[in-house]
Amino acid sequence: MTSPGSHTPHEARALFRGGLRTPTAGWCTGRTQANLIAVPRDYAYHVLLFAQRNPKSCPVLDVTEPGATATPMFDGDLRTDLPAYRVYVDGEAAGEVDDVRAAWRDDLVAFLIGCSFTFEDALLAAGVPIRHVELGRNVPMYRTTIPCRDAGPLGGPLVVSMRPVAPDLVATAVRVTSRYPAVHGAPVHVGDPAALGITDLDRPDFGDPVDLRPGEVPVFWACGVTPQAAVMASRPPLAICHAPGHMAITDARDTDLVVP
Amino acid sequence: MTSPGSHTPHEARALFRGGLRTPTAGWCTGRTQANLIAVPRDYAYHVLLFAQRNPKSCPVLDVTEPGATATPMFDGDLRTDLPAYRVYVDGEAAGEVDDVRAAWRDDLVAFLIGCSFTFEDALLAAGVPIRHVELGRNVPMYRTTIPCRDAGPLGGPLVVSMRPVAPDLVATAVRVTSRYPAVHGAPVHVGDPAALGITDLDRPDFGDPVDLRPGEVPVFWACGVTPQAAVMASRPPLAICHAPGHMAITDARDTDLVVP
Repeated sequence: MTSPGSHTPHEARALFRGGLRTPTAGWCTGRTQANLIAVPRDYAYHVLLFAQRNPKSCPVLDVTEPGATATPMFDGDLRTDLPAYRVYVDGEAAGEVDDVRAAWRDDLVAFLIGCSFTFEDALLAAGVPIRHVELGRNVPMYRTTIPCRDAGPLGGPLVVSMRPVAPDLVATAVRVTSRYPAVHGAPVHVGDPAALGITDLDRPDFGDPVDLRPGEVPVFWACGVTPQAAVMASRPPLAICHAPGHMAITDARDTDLVVP
Repeated sequence: MTSPGSHTPHEARALFRGGLRTPTAGWCTGRTQANLIAVPRDYAYHVLLFAQRNPKSCPVLDVTEPGATATPMFDGDLRTDLPAYRVYVDGEAAGEVDDVRAAWRDDLVAFLIGCSFTFEDALLAAGVPIRHVELGRNVPMYRTTIPCRDAGPLGGPLVVSMRPVAPDLVATAVRVTSRYPAVHGAPVHVGDPAALGITDLDRPDFGDPVDLRPGEVPVFWACGVTPQAAVMASRPPLAICHAPGHMAITDARDTDLVVP
């Protein structure tokens, strides 16, 4: 069997379009993964301004023309080529689906927002293990009590992803990820989850729990599910998003995003 | 007489509000300077998307609420506290004015966009002289033949600023400015102006010419007049901008913008 990491973005998107539903951590080594949020054109300014005001959690990689289902960096169909989606109507999603063609509208503007899965290859190359990839699970993600800066009607809490890191590798993890600001960059928080308002690491708000071994430090990165949490809090009429951890795999290369 | 560099932003804005009209290079050492473009709310999405698609020339520092005349980083009045303005109606500006209160509207959204004057203190500290400051002139700015990426109806050419740099200081100039991506960062071009479609350095499209001495290399940075050139090319109904080189002096500190 071909390993997930060795698939091309084209192959991965075809598998997802064909019905495969899986978190995408570890898929398509070297290719940039992205969060999806599509909203009606008359709401798009709020999303773009929310991203501008919260760049750490919402680094915008690409924006479609209204109604378009591809972008220069995603040569596929945004309605079918992600492994799973959530369709939010008035801030509520009724479960996760494989295909959002029925819900798509001609006035939707889709935003691709950087995802921290992108820098996991660089972490592995630097000798920092990724627990959720080792376990074949989705990354654990948590709503924090840190508010984002509002944009008009759109506001909500910062969402973070967490990776356990051995004490002698925390500096490496910070150093490596700080070179990828377009996919959340350096951690927002290292250590004590309570300071973020997270009461139980074993109960993530999105994704799967992973074990924190003795001595390991929980390291938190800003997460592209943040706009999705804002949708839940702010209840716009319609928002079509990826299911957390089930990302858009783009054609862009991680190396194009790195800063010196 | 107090030197321009030693003024606080509050003092500088009061002088400009009182009628002083001067380019702001060299003013308020250590404080961030910004380009202004204010457009009606129903056009604001295009400006914000244009900035997202052209981040090198249009790094957004702050965005007002509709009708607001201050921002968290500019504790003044955007309608009076810049040294000079241009009011574009259908893409045409009838000269430059000191005060735009008469043209302001309650539905205007104002964007503050990073300005390369901000990194000039860091260049000076690194031993790179700034010719236009030495001469007491405005920086020379040029329309290039490099197109920006369009955003809906808004498109136009990249505009650049130029500073002559001695050959042994070009690397320093690149290194220093690359640490300030929020104010245009590293140069977009070093050397031959013709490659940018610039035919005569002595005839800038905005600002004043400066002499290029024997052996000096013209170094070009992306310029925040770019959205203003897009306004001229795309002719939205209304856009209120700073006069090139006559910037909004914000309360933000340059040191807050630097990246490691």
